[in-house]
Amino acid sequence: MKFTHENGLELLLAVAVLIGAARLLGELARRCNKPPVLGELVAGILLGPSVLGHLVPQAENFLFPTQGPTAMALDGIRFLAVTLFLMVAGMEVDLPTILRHRRTALTVGLGALLLPFSLGLGAAWFAPEWLCFAGGSEHQHLVFSLFVGTALGISALPVLAKILIDLKLFKTDPGMVIIAAAIFIDLVGWNLFGLVMSLHQGGEGGGKEICIRLASTLGFAVFMLTLGRAALARILPWVQAHSSWPAGILGFILTAGLCCAAFTQWLGIHSLFGAFLFGVALGDSPHLRRSIRATLEQFIGFILTPLFFASIGLKIDFLADFSIVPVLVLVACACFGKIPGAWLGARLCGMKGREALAVGVGMNTYGAMEIVLGLTALQAGIISQSLFVAIVVLALGTSLCTSSLLQAVLHRPRAIHLVNQLSSTRFIREIQSRDTSGAIAELCQLAAEKSRLDPAAITAAVMEREALMPTGLPGGLAVPHARLDKLDAPLVVVGLSSQGLDFLSPDDSKSRLIFLILTPGEQSQSQLELLSEIASRFQDPEMVRQASECRGFTEFLALVQSREGTA
Amino acid sequence: MKFTHENGLELLLAVAVLIGAARLLGELARRCNKPPVLGELVAGILLGPSVLGHLVPQAENFLFPTQGPTAMALDGIRFLAVTLFLMVAGMEVDLPTILRHRRTALTVGLGALLLPFSLGLGAAWFAPEWLCFAGGSEHQHLVFSLFVGTALGISALPVLAKILIDLKLFKTDPGMVIIAAAIFIDLVGWNLFGLVMSLHQGGEGGGKEICIRLASTLGFAVFMLTLGRAALARILPWVQAHSSWPAGILGFILTAGLCCAAFTQWLGIHSLFGAFLFGVALGDSPHLRRSIRATLEQFIGFILTPLFFASIGLKIDFLADFSIVPVLVLVACACFGKIPGAWLGARLCGMKGREALAVGVGMNTYGAMEIVLGLTALQAGIISQSLFVAIVVLALGTSLCTSSLLQAVLHRPRAIHLVNQLSSTRFIREIQSRDTSGAIAELCQLAAEKSRLDPAAITAAVMEREALMPTGLPGGLAVPHARLDKLDAPLVVVGLSSQGLDFLSPDDSKSRLIFLILTPGEQSQSQLELLSEIASRFQDPEMVRQASECRGFTEFLALVQSREGTA
Repeated sequence: MKFTHENGLELLLAVAVLIGAARLLGELARRCNKPPVLGELVAGILLGPSVLGHLVPQAENFLFPTQGPTAMALDGIRFLAVTLFLMVAGMEVDLPTILRHRRTALTVGLGALLLPFSLGLGAAWFAPEWLCFAGGSEHQHLVFSLFVGTALGISALPVLAKILIDLKLFKTDPGMVIIAAAIFIDLVGWNLFGLVMSLHQGGEGGGKEICIRLASTLGFAVFMLTLGRAALARILPWVQAHSSWPAGILGFILTAGLCCAAFTQWLGIHSLFGAFLFGVALGDSPHLRRSIRATLEQFIGFILTPLFFASIGLKIDFLADFSIVPVLVLVACACFGKIPGAWLGARLCGMKGREALAVGVGMNTYGAMEIVLGLTALQAGIISQSLFVAIVVLALGTSLCTSSLLQAVLHRPRAIHLVNQLSSTRFIREIQSRDTSGAIAELCQLAAEKSRLDPAAITAAVMEREALMPTGLPGGLAVPHARLDKLDAPLVVVGLSSQGLDFLSPDDSKSRLIFLILTPGEQSQSQLELLSEIASRFQDPEMVRQASECRGFTEFLALVQSREGTA
Repeated sequence: MKFTHENGLELLLAVAVLIGAARLLGELARRCNKPPVLGELVAGILLGPSVLGHLVPQAENFLFPTQGPTAMALDGIRFLAVTLFLMVAGMEVDLPTILRHRRTALTVGLGALLLPFSLGLGAAWFAPEWLCFAGGSEHQHLVFSLFVGTALGISALPVLAKILIDLKLFKTDPGMVIIAAAIFIDLVGWNLFGLVMSLHQGGEGGGKEICIRLASTLGFAVFMLTLGRAALARILPWVQAHSSWPAGILGFILTAGLCCAAFTQWLGIHSLFGAFLFGVALGDSPHLRRSIRATLEQFIGFILTPLFFASIGLKIDFLADFSIVPVLVLVACACFGKIPGAWLGARLCGMKGREALAVGVGMNTYGAMEIVLGLTALQAGIISQSLFVAIVVLALGTSLCTSSLLQAVLHRPRAIHLVNQLSSTRFIREIQSRDTSGAIAELCQLAAEKSRLDPAAITAAVMEREALMPTGLPGGLAVPHARLDKLDAPLVVVGLSSQGLDFLSPDDSKSRLIFLILTPGEQSQSQLELLSEIASRFQDPEMVRQASECRGFTEFLALVQSREGTA
């Protein structure tokens, strides 16, 4: 068998279609404020046997052959992608955060882990048929039950972090408790998973083999988190000092990470375990530079990971294998396990009613990790396709609900982001007026059209504020603003002036980029948020210059989004 | 056939060993001031049938199986890696540079392209047996001859750019001419290659098929460089504006690049051609942000590309297939083609004797592209293994020699880099003295030990300079320096002081990071270069703070190398 010219064409098309579709649907999901992994999975389901395979089987067979060199190459790439994804996920596990909040992290974490673990274990042990257990020896049944427990015990760290940031809860008390506990659970959960895998692999060899495998799994974990971590802290500066930058350090990280993955694959646990632990040991080294972290996170997180999640749908017919019973059982175990468990932990740490409930609801989030765990168990023959589909449904369902539930529990408003406030209909490419009050009137006129308020009233409010203290900022930026009682939502109008207008800025610069910011009277917070975001994004005068030279709204929005000057 | 747990282990090991060995030997090559691609190729030769396969065949078979899922996965990854490498290489082709220097670029480029092309074509046509032509139809012979001509016509843009920077020639007249001409040759050469491939593929179909293929190749090239380029310039800001940053734009670039590659693969030319042209169209867009460029260049250039070059050695027995005759023929065609051709072009543009000769010598550089071209022709069955090995030897040989030859022709000193001047034996972790003159004496004492000059004389010279004007800079940096007639080479001693010393800096800051810079009396340039490099690397006070807190020399060197603060 040879990798031919035609295989090359097939592989290029398959990878291009997977990356493109995953991105497209990931963006759609993001638009609807859903986690991108949802879109990526759906992309694979649409392209795989579930949909495209049903509708146009020839197209699916052509794009994603299941046999031959192209299929093997895709399998290999998918395998490397998920291994590297776990490495990057491990890099996000910040051990010092757990140590700083060790009491709450341990209490909440153990509560949120043990209760759902026990429920899952019990359900799988006493009612395996509800979870589509294919049957097998008692040993297989035990492994199956332990796996279900572990899968229910784990939480979705990245989804959680995103939700907390979105609800401005990240730096609050419940936020930090949730994150520290989730990191703790991630760490313990993956170790549990390693033990389940070694039990599974060593199973047929009897007690001695099991002991050896369990011991080597634990030994490897302890080694990586202590000596391995310390060794990396010494090796990283050495590699950076004595090799070309950044090629040397990137090469070292990939080589060492893949070697750790290969080691645990050889142990029979799975490459994911080694890659994750290497990521943990690497990630909190103070010697890992930001730009290296960014390169790894961007290429692996934004290209390889979506490729992996989209490719899951190619292997499994989600429609044929869907079954409602295991979904209900899993959801019940999750809700009656995670929420009370985490709530109890939070109460024990002295948190009040509503906050403790928020911790409980927050921890009940499953996500990408859940799916990776499930797929690995499926491939190892521990669980059936139907249970895997149920796990995917659980993961997506909880990550879809948590955000709204948390908002309901804590009455938190969502953070206001500048980019969401910008629109081509509230953008003036060139302000006509040559004087400041005329320019303000022009911007207010546009704002009035959009908000259906009286333009004269808006202008008067803005001018009044302007008279109090001019809003010109150094570097050519101006931010006239006002609070209006009749407004329901914040409203931003942007105007550019190539000549510059005099907003009496402290450095006497002419303002060429003007943001008119109107906020509802009672929302004092939103005005502050928008003002500070504009000030921080445009603190570099170069950024203001580039913005004022944009030829249209799309270029302007692209510049604001990317936060960085053109090359 | 299934991709099993064992295949996963094999793939992880193979990729880890390839990346690791390529990096290691690439770094070694860089230490010896040779292009890293040399080390990467040698890594593959050592691991492949040429060496490891001869010595320990079992190990080679275990690590790099030639059959089965792992081999297919590696082939697929290698194929994607070289395709993406060409995309990144295309991004370096800066069309505006050619346009700015269009007269010289065209004249020198055509001279440096046509003469070696004709010599190669002639040699291959009239003496095919010298170039190990396997025999075949007249059509195959014609394709073979055209390929040899094309391979000799192309130049190595990245190697050239590096050599010119290294010899401080990049911004000079001959430097810009060489670069512009090399970009022009790259562009024309890849189009020639595309035509050769379409001639090869369409060959058996007769005249009409050939015409269709040639037309579609040229049509695609013209489209990408005109309409495609213009379309990208409009699409990029749109994608940036309306998708998440930077995931959206990365996903778009990869998807679109792979689609272009797939299109030319489908045309029968090869994915490389489409990827390269997409890179060209993308690369000079003013809307491609620096950080996106960096992510692509770093992951593809420093991970995937070395993986590809190392994997070449796995396929070919370089020792068994080496033959001296084709090497000599190729080297003769190159030297008697490139040097006179480029020299003539440079003379026609009015360049003087020595500079014109430098252009000729400079253009006679082959490199990584040559090897990619050769491998593609080998896989398409156009050339034999022996000629491929000869092409590799030509590419490595010329890229090894050019730097020294250019230096000899133009008498250029190499650029002095700060990192090469730093050494653990010229580093004081904590200066003992509490006063400035004591600290200078301490640093000069160490300098004296290394240079075998009189410490008192050094100290006197430095103090004299210090008395003229203090050398404290804002932010905690000080750069005491002197020129010494008896010194043969620049000498830098670094000292840290946690308390800070008073070097009378303009912002009254205490200097905690002190560079003592001693340069030979006649080399006024080297002092300026070192001073300006230190000033620019440490202009951020945060960088000075981090440097002064380093626990040892390795950490200090790592910080200087990576130019960036810790996270």
